[in-house]
Amino acid sequence: DFMNALENDVKPAFGTSATEVSAYVANGIIPWGAPVARILEDGELLAKQVKESERTPLVAVLLEGPPGSGKTALAAQIAKNSDFPFLKICSPENMIGFHESAKCQQIKKIFDDAYKSQLSCVIVDDIERLLDYAPIGPRFSNLVLQALLVLLKKVPPHGRKLLVIATSSRRDVLQDLEMTNVFNARIHAYNLSTGEQLLAALDGMDAFTKKEMEDITKAVDGKRLCIAIKKLQVLVEMARQTEEGERVPKLITLLQEEGGLED
Amino acid sequence: DFMNALENDVKPAFGTSATEVSAYVANGIIPWGAPVARILEDGELLAKQVKESERTPLVAVLLEGPPGSGKTALAAQIAKNSDFPFLKICSPENMIGFHESAKCQQIKKIFDDAYKSQLSCVIVDDIERLLDYAPIGPRFSNLVLQALLVLLKKVPPHGRKLLVIATSSRRDVLQDLEMTNVFNARIHAYNLSTGEQLLAALDGMDAFTKKEMEDITKAVDGKRLCIAIKKLQVLVEMARQTEEGERVPKLITLLQEEGGLED
Amino acid sequence: DFMNALENDVKPAFGTSATEVSAYVANGIIPWGAPVARILEDGELLAKQVKESERTPLVAVLLEGPPGSGKTALAAQIAKNSDFPFLKICSPENMIGFHESAKCQQIKKIFDDAYKSQLSCVIVDDIERLLDYAPIGPRFSNLVLQALLVLLKKVPPHGRKLLVIATSSRRDVLQDLEMTNVFNARIHAYNLSTGEQLLAALDGMDAFTKKEMEDITKAVDGKRLCIAIKKLQVLVEMARQTEEGERVPKLITLLQEEGGLED
Amino acid sequence: DFMNALENDVKPAFGTSATEVSAYVANGIIPWGAPVARILEDGELLAKQVKESERTPLVAVLLEGPPGSGKTALAAQIAKNSDFPFLKICSPENMIGFHESAKCQQIKKIFDDAYKSQLSCVIVDDIERLLDYAPIGPRFSNLVLQALLVLLKKVPPHGRKLLVIATSSRRDVLQDLEMTNVFNARIHAYNLSTGEQLLAALDGMDAFTKKEMEDITKAVDGKRLCIAIKKLQVLVEMARQTEEGERVPKLITLLQEEGGLED
Amino acid sequence: DFMNALENDVKPAFGTSATEVSAYVANGIIPWGAPVARILEDGELLAKQVKESERTPLVAVLLEGPPGSGKTALAAQIAKNSDFPFLKICSPENMIGFHESAKCQQIKKIFDDAYKSQLSCVIVDDIERLLDYAPIGPRFSNLVLQALLVLLKKVPPHGRKLLVIATSSRRDVLQDLEMTNVFNARIHAYNLSTGEQLLAALDGMDAFTKKEMEDITKAVDGKRLCIAIKKLQVLVEMARQTEEGERVPKLITLLQEEGGLED
Amino acid sequence: DFMNALENDVKPAFGTSATEVSAYVANGIIPWGAPVARILEDGELLAKQVKESERTPLVAVLLEGPPGSGKTALAAQIAKNSDFPFLKICSPENMIGFHESAKCQQIKKIFDDAYKSQLSCVIVDDIERLLDYAPIGPRFSNLVLQALLVLLKKVPPHGRKLLVIATSSRRDVLQDLEMTNVFNARIHAYNLSTGEQLLAALDGMDAFTKKEMEDITKAVDGKRLCIAIKKLQVLVEMARQTEEGERVPKLITLLQEEGGLED
Ligand SMILES: Nc1ncnc2c1ncn2[C@@H]1O[C@H](COP(=O)(O)OP(=O)(O)OP(=O)(O)O)[C@@H](O)[C@H]1O
Ligand SMILES: Nc1ncnc2c1ncn2[C@@H]1O[C@H](COP(=O)(O)OP(=O)(O)OP(=O)(O)O)[C@@H](O)[C@H]1O
Ligand SMILES: Nc1ncnc2c1ncn2[C@@H]1O[C@H](COP(=O)(O)OP(=O)(O)OP(=O)(O)O)[C@@H](O)[C@H]1O
Ligand SMILES: Nc1ncnc2c1ncn2[C@@H]1O[C@H](COP(=O)(O)OP(=O)(O)OP(=O)(O)O)[C@@H](O)[C@H]1O
Ligand SMILES: Nc1ncnc2c1ncn2[C@@H]1O[C@H](COP(=O)(O)OP(=O)(O)OP(=O)(O)O)[C@@H](O)[C@H]1O
Ligand SMILES: Nc1ncnc2c1ncn2[C@@H]1O[C@H](COP(=O)(O)OP(=O)(O)OP(=O)(O)O)[C@@H](O)[C@H]1O
Ligand SMILES: [Mg+2]
Ligand SMILES: [Mg+2]
Ligand SMILES: [Mg+2]
Ligand SMILES: [Mg+2]
Ligand SMILES: [Mg+2]
Ligand SMILES: [Mg+2]
Repeated sequence: DFMNALENDVKPAFGTSATEVSAYVANGIIPWGAPVARILEDGELLAKQVKESERTPLVAVLLEGPPGSGKTALAAQIAKNSDFPFLKICSPENMIGFHESAKCQQIKKIFDDAYKSQLSCVIVDDIERLLDYAPIGPRFSNLVLQALLVLLKKVPPHGRKLLVIATSSRRDVLQDLEMTNVFNARIHAYNLSTGEQLLAALDGMDAFTKKEMEDITKAVDGKRLCIAIKKLQVLVEMARQTEEGERVPKLITLLQEEGGLED
Repeated sequence: DFMNALENDVKPAFGTSATEVSAYVANGIIPWGAPVARILEDGELLAKQVKESERTPLVAVLLEGPPGSGKTALAAQIAKNSDFPFLKICSPENMIGFHESAKCQQIKKIFDDAYKSQLSCVIVDDIERLLDYAPIGPRFSNLVLQALLVLLKKVPPHGRKLLVIATSSRRDVLQDLEMTNVFNARIHAYNLSTGEQLLAALDGMDAFTKKEMEDITKAVDGKRLCIAIKKLQVLVEMARQTEEGERVPKLITLLQEEGGLED
Repeated sequence: DFMNALENDVKPAFGTSATEVSAYVANGIIPWGAPVARILEDGELLAKQVKESERTPLVAVLLEGPPGSGKTALAAQIAKNSDFPFLKICSPENMIGFHESAKCQQIKKIFDDAYKSQLSCVIVDDIERLLDYAPIGPRFSNLVLQALLVLLKKVPPHGRKLLVIATSSRRDVLQDLEMTNVFNARIHAYNLSTGEQLLAALDGMDAFTKKEMEDITKAVDGKRLCIAIKKLQVLVEMARQTEEGERVPKLITLLQEEGGLED
Repeated sequence: DFMNALENDVKPAFGTSATEVSAYVANGIIPWGAPVARILEDGELLAKQVKESERTPLVAVLLEGPPGSGKTALAAQIAKNSDFPFLKICSPENMIGFHESAKCQQIKKIFDDAYKSQLSCVIVDDIERLLDYAPIGPRFSNLVLQALLVLLKKVPPHGRKLLVIATSSRRDVLQDLEMTNVFNARIHAYNLSTGEQLLAALDGMDAFTKKEMEDITKAVDGKRLCIAIKKLQVLVEMARQTEEGERVPKLITLLQEEGGLED
Repeated sequence: DFMNALENDVKPAFGTSATEVSAYVANGIIPWGAPVARILEDGELLAKQVKESERTPLVAVLLEGPPGSGKTALAAQIAKNSDFPFLKICSPENMIGFHESAKCQQIKKIFDDAYKSQLSCVIVDDIERLLDYAPIGPRFSNLVLQALLVLLKKVPPHGRKLLVIATSSRRDVLQDLEMTNVFNARIHAYNLSTGEQLLAALDGMDAFTKKEMEDITKAVDGKRLCIAIKKLQVLVEMARQTEEGERVPKLITLLQEEGGLED
Repeated sequence: DFMNALENDVKPAFGTSATEVSAYVANGIIPWGAPVARILEDGELLAKQVKESERTPLVAVLLEGPPGSGKTALAAQIAKNSDFPFLKICSPENMIGFHESAKCQQIKKIFDDAYKSQLSCVIVDDIERLLDYAPIGPRFSNLVLQALLVLLKKVPPHGRKLLVIATSSRRDVLQDLEMTNVFNARIHAYNLSTGEQLLAALDGMDAFTKKEMEDITKAVDGKRLCIAIKKLQVLVEMARQTEEGERVPKLITLLQEEGGLED
């Protein structure tokens, strides 16, 4: 209807930040298996809910999974796919050495900007780092914690809608901090765990010859595999520094040393 | 009598904040059952006591209950129903990233303003957040705690009357902080816990067809139910993103995943 | 004798604060029983000692008892009865949100002013709050603690005399802080604990008809009673909001819910 | 000899503070028994050593004993008896509400002034309070502790001599803080512990008639007695507020309530 | 190819710091055995990966081993060997007495400078000291920790490449701080552990005559040896202060006292 | 040779501080036994190493032993004996009441000055006090600790040489702080422990007549003795305040009370 059309015909209040967000998917999203597809779909559904529902103008989703499983890249991809006029990433990389006050201000600023657009998506990347979490103590910034606890629940001003995608490798820490409650939904990111997924990923990297791929297939057959996509990329590049004939054995050795491949 | 009439014929010293308070009942109060009615009545009685009693010019009530049970909305509704000339909500949403000093000042300011009106109602929303409470440590702002402990007991200046409604999801924490003593009364907010209540709530949301309602009735029959009104709204909206035929099963699944529906 | 007469013929250096102190006995002192009388007498004796003894120009008394037992009001009454030219209350209500430095300064200022009058009485109200005491930790302001420990022992300048009345609901905390030693005397405030005392108190409030009083007498007969005078006033006002016939049963119910009346 | 005469013929660099120090023996030193005499003698000997020895230009003595046993008054008396040209008391009473930095500065200033005179005596009164010691935690000012640890060991500039008398009621705390090592000598202050001592003290206060003294003698005979001189003075004054005939029984009761008199 | 040639034909944006880095290999790298060679090779391979791979523009390696095993010198040598146009060492020696904020700023500045060159190598020397780690508490700068955690993972701007070599003697501490995850690779530095390695090292120091070398060979034969190269240099210099005939026995004694030589 | 001559023909860059350092051996070094001689020799050897070795331009030695064993005086003596053009003592006495930042700056300044001279000796006196160490907590300045950890390892600029002598009574604390590793050498200071040593020390003080010395010999014969040289001096001076005939028995009593003399 007209009201609806009008509301969705939004213009970004402060220019789209799609380019900035794209930087976080530098190496693309390799479709190495069903989990990848499902995460992107779930993200799409939530974006749709934000756009269409009147009763839930705020949806906050937690994208959590092991280190290097691609959380940041996936969050960025979901944001881009949403096609919302306002996209912004709230990343620890832009707050290095900040005291907690400065961090809070920057985080709050991003949300305040988001509230000015009718349809916004904010990525809260790497919550542990935003919280300055250290396991010894444990220590964390209570100021940032409290700010996030409020921001993740705060309904945007009338007529504005907001999708928040937060990422974390430490669901247990968020639980201990009683932070998981504030999310409306949760998406889990996975490591690669089958030979098939590994081959699909390597294929997507275009790193080995057909013959080499076959050797890899044999080498991992019947073994237990568990490797993060980000880590896999580093190991592949390390293997590629060696002579041609040694590249596959090197990769297998590296995978084993990392504990990513076990009998 | 005349004296009484005069005293109640108060004018707001700083303009009524009813509109601001209304923002906290955005989705209205759906009358899903007896608990809702009783809470509103209890609130009304206390407001009456403030208005009429000479010996208790200050009444401080604690409205506590599980997360999402509607505490903030109910507190706002009670405030509005009281028809007091001065209404103000003291909410963590307006103090994001504030250091404890700034928080204290803002809280104190609200009470000082309230003291200037003859009949005032102040909502102290989400005490845990105002206290910057974090379970690890545990940590909290002692400055804010001390300020609240004094403000919740401080008799207003001669001739002024004040109703304070404080909300909290963590009665245990308040107990540990020896904070429960300062309240004159306590009201408990409940989750929905019967199929009847669920149906009344869904009815109030106008979200499902008659047929769907019947299906839901069957699906929850004989099961243990426990769901917060706030959470229920999100699940309903999620279910509504699916195809028509799947909406009821989806809702049931979501309720189960949330742990809100058990055999 | 003349010297004595001269010394007592003091004039307040900074104007008497009797009015300010009176605000803390807003609802008067209802003579509900022997304990009330004894406390006032003990206070009178100490005031006399300050006035007359040359060897003890400083007397510091701790007035401690359960929450709401009337400590603040009784301290204020003793101060007023003393008829000293300088009266001042050092209350947390006037230091809301103060940091410990500011608190110390204000407390010290009050004592310094008292030293300027020949005969002074200072009320140090609610020591726990002045100390910013929180049971979790436990936390407290060491700066304020140290200031009080010194001020409560410090002999006034030659020729000046000072009575300090401090109140506290947490004698155990003061004990743990090794603070009880600095007091020269201790007065205990009591809750109402007999039906007779209850009726005397209700009588003093002029809240019920003769018939109602009789009903109450019957209702509490043979029961264990323990209620703070401050709490009692609130319950009475709550009961009075109900219909005429229900006021007594309501009061009894409220007393029971509070744990103030047991079989 | 001449050198010696010259050296002792010192002039105070900053005026003698004997008057200031006298204020701390307001009620005089009542010679209630052998312990009192011995303490004064020990003090005299140490003052002599400072004056005469070349190898120990600094002597630091710890005067410790139960609360109210007269430590401050005795330290002041020893200082006065020494007849040193520079006398100064470093007392918590002059640093109320000071932060640790300010405390350190003031303490250091006193020692620096002392170093300017050829023969100085500094009283460091009530170390626990100077340290802001609180038993919960425990808490204390490390800045003040470190300053004292260095100052109590620091040899004065060539040709200057210094006697430091420190007082404390908490030798155990100083032990735990590894502070007792820095003292060259230790003097213990005692409570009154025999009927004879009690009567000598009462005699010194001139508080009771001969008849009353006899009654007291009988009343305490065969009982265990332990009372601080400071406390005793307060109890005597309290007893004196009563009617003539009741003064002795009152004193005995007060002594018993204080735990100072046991069968 | 051309693109590659161009990319590597980089110019240092801020002048090469090779000289500065050289200062950390003051006593050269004595090739005392296979571990030394392997470390340098591993370093070379990683530098090659940074130069050539497009997918891993950031490689962060942890060079860890016992105190004095030559970590800093080896890191500096690897950096020099890499021939990258931008070399910089981030060393605690340049931040003595810095508060954590200043440390963070300086560290961040070095990385920001590195990002401006196309090919950079940054040494993060002695992480424990950068973190202000103290075992009692334990204590550490969380601000520096968080900054390093982010910087060691942060992908350089498009087209820039960075090799980070971090050194540490406390792998266990980094593990506890969950810091080891952020490194892509790990190189272990070793102590000398065979007579052969010892002789090779002494040979490289040119410190003893042929005869003395033979005596040392005999003396260490069949013993368990474990000594850091840095410590060995000090012991050798101490031994050399003695008379000619005593130098070998002295060295053996010193080695034994250090616990570096056992039967 | 010439190069050597030139290098040692150094001039102090900022004036020699030998006089300042001398103040710390006010009472001279009494040669009471072999330990004293050995410590001075060890110090001499290390100074020689600094002067002559090219590979170890920095030597840091820890002089540790019981309180009062003469560590500071011995360190000062070693420094003076070294005849280095730059001598400086980094003493807590010059930093009383300093906050950790100011302490760090002053310490760093001393080292920076030392680096400007070709041959320098810095005494870091009483590490526990420089660290503001308190056993309760325990507490210490991490800023100072970190500064010392770096400064004690930092190689001076090319061509400069530095001997650092640090003193401490708490080797256990330094161990816990993982500070002992940074020293290249360790020298232990002893208490007097034989009658012979005691007599040699008393002889050096010239405090008793020949007859008295004989009495002392007898009195300590066969007893276990353990007394610090610094303490002994105080006891001797105390004994000397008594009458001639009582001086020996007094000394023996004092030794026993101190726990320095046991059967
Ligand atoms: N299917 C995929 N999913 C996610 N990332 C992928 C995928 N395929 C390739 N990538 C690449 O893998 C990398 C994943 O890194 P990313 O930083 O997103 O992981 P992360 O889980 O956020 O890591 P960390 O736990 O360190 O925060 C990115 O470079 C991304 O481009
Ligand atoms: N009967 C009801 N009682 C309360 N809220 C209701 C009711 N019916 C509908 N609502 C809506 O449900 C929502 C309740 O959310 P609210 O923030 O008040 O819950 P809360 O208990 O304060 O949550 P939290 O624990 O997160 O603070 C509001 O949007 C309100 O409009
Ligand atoms: N006999 C009485 N003694 C004390 N207060 C009385 C008495 N009779 C009536 N009152 C009234 O009861 C109230 C006592 O409240 P007050 O604040 O003095 O109690 P409190 O013990 O200080 O409470 P809290 O523990 O909260 O500090 C006052 O309003 C006072 O006027
Ligand atoms: N023999 C005595 N020794 C000490 N004080 C005496 C003696 N006789 C009388 N007095 C008086 O007793 C009082 C002792 O109080 P003082 O403050 O010195 O005790 P204190 O031990 O320092 O107390 P606190 O433990 O509170 O510091 C002084 O007023 C002093 O004049
Ligand atoms: N093969 C070698 N490897 C490393 N250092 C060597 C080697 N041969 C000689 N050296 C010299 O040994 C010293 C090693 O000291 P370096 O400071 O690098 O050790 P470190 O492990 O960093 O010590 P720390 O644990 O104290 O940080 C340097 O002076 C270096 O020149
Ligand atoms: N053989 C000796 N060795 C050291 N000091 C001696 C010797 N003979 C006499 N002395 C004198 O003894 C005193 C030793 O005191 P010093 O302050 O050096 O001891 P310390 O061990 O540093 O004490 P602390 O543990 O308190 O720091 C000095 O006055 C010094 O002149
Ligand atoms: Mg990430
Ligand atoms: Mg709420
Ligand atoms: Mg009170
Ligand atoms: Mg005292
Ligand atoms: Mg190193
Ligand atoms: Mg010393």
